[in-house]
Amino acid sequence: MIELFDSPFSGNAYKCRLLMHKLGLPYRRTVVDIDRGESRTPEFLARNPNGRVPLLLLEDGTHLAESNAILCWLAKGTAWLPEDRLEFAQVMQWLFFEQYSHEPNIATVRYWLTHGFEITPLRAQLIEIKRPQGHAALGVMEGHLASRPFFVGARPTIADMALYAYTHVAEEGGFALKDYPHVRAWLARVTADTPHIAITD
Amino acid sequence: MIELFDSPFSGNAYKCRLLMHKLGLPYRRTVVDIDRGESRTPEFLARNPNGRVPLLLLEDGTHLAESNAILCWLAKGTAWLPEDRLEFAQVMQWLFFEQYSHEPNIATVRYWLTHGFEITPLRAQLIEIKRPQGHAALGVMEGHLASRPFFVGARPTIADMALYAYTHVAEEGGFALKDYPHVRAWLARVTADTPHIAITD
Repeated sequence: MIELFDSPFSGNAYKCRLLMHKLGLPYRRTVVDIDRGESRTPEFLARNPNGRVPLLLLEDGTHLAESNAILCWLAKGTAWLPEDRLEFAQVMQWLFFEQYSHEPNIATVRYWLTHGFEITPLRAQLIEIKRPQGHAALGVMEGHLASRPFFVGARPTIADMALYAYTHVAEEGGFALKDYPHVRAWLARVTADTPHIAITD
Repeated sequence: MIELFDSPFSGNAYKCRLLMHKLGLPYRRTVVDIDRGESRTPEFLARNPNGRVPLLLLEDGTHLAESNAILCWLAKGTAWLPEDRLEFAQVMQWLFFEQYSHEPNIATVRYWLTHGFEITPLRAQLIEIKRPQGHAALGVMEGHLASRPFFVGARPTIADMALYAYTHVAEEGGFALKDYPHVRAWLARVTADTPHIAITD
């Protein structure tokens, strides 16, 4: 059985659980307590030298890191990752957008604000920078979703899984979604696409 | 003919040019002057709402953003992107590592230091944070390359293209490579893999 090294605070890990649930794929879930340094122990660094969760241990003993690469492995050969060259590349475009323009702004601010971090002067300055950058990312999503039900094609793909994870909890980071009606309608479509699990499940 | 919207300062754009050169793929190159705001004009934002280069305009009129998604489109169906499920996912792992753990540290500091940015107190603090994070990324690469010629499998893939782009100019950002002999040997292997072009070509 495959094994997911997970953190309950991580939207990146939630993406993987959500897709495995949708695929009906059984897996073992091992929680790594990041706050207690468990992602930086020699034992964990032997699994992932980059010291991050989520991490997927495959049945052949290979460890796969990076949440969106895990989504790619899980989805390969299914409709969650189109084989068509252009649709495949467009899914990839949104996965890289998510990790570069969305997650470092929206997820990072949410983590600081909800996880008891001291808001040092540096962190306050960074929040001032990340706040408009996060809204810019939401604005790009809003424009794209104005004329489409999902990010690529007519049904959900891993692009939707990746972007749903931190968008649906963006308000916990102070990113109000009221000005993004198309994003909110898309979130409702993804949530309604069964089977579904919540980030807290 | 496909058209690449490009910046001569961008390693992300260089990745795409390097792979198109290796594939022998003709393309039109249009330089976008980021310093003069040309990536933020209404005309450019209509092409890429995220306002970034590189951007690839396909023959059917579709615009594809995100350097590593462009690599995926270019490489799909070639040996530069393996079809094998695990190798494919491992290539993706390194592409996401590059955009999350490598580029925001090494490329950003290089850009600030080589491009005439004022080193404000905030930027100085960020460089202090990004410096060890960039070295941590180089350390992860060093460990991985200690026992392998390329990042995935026995020949170069787009994982190597992506990581080569900013690693081979890391010293311009003050990231000395002397303590990374396996990274230096890998850089030499990638450089020697013909046909090759330089970032300044």
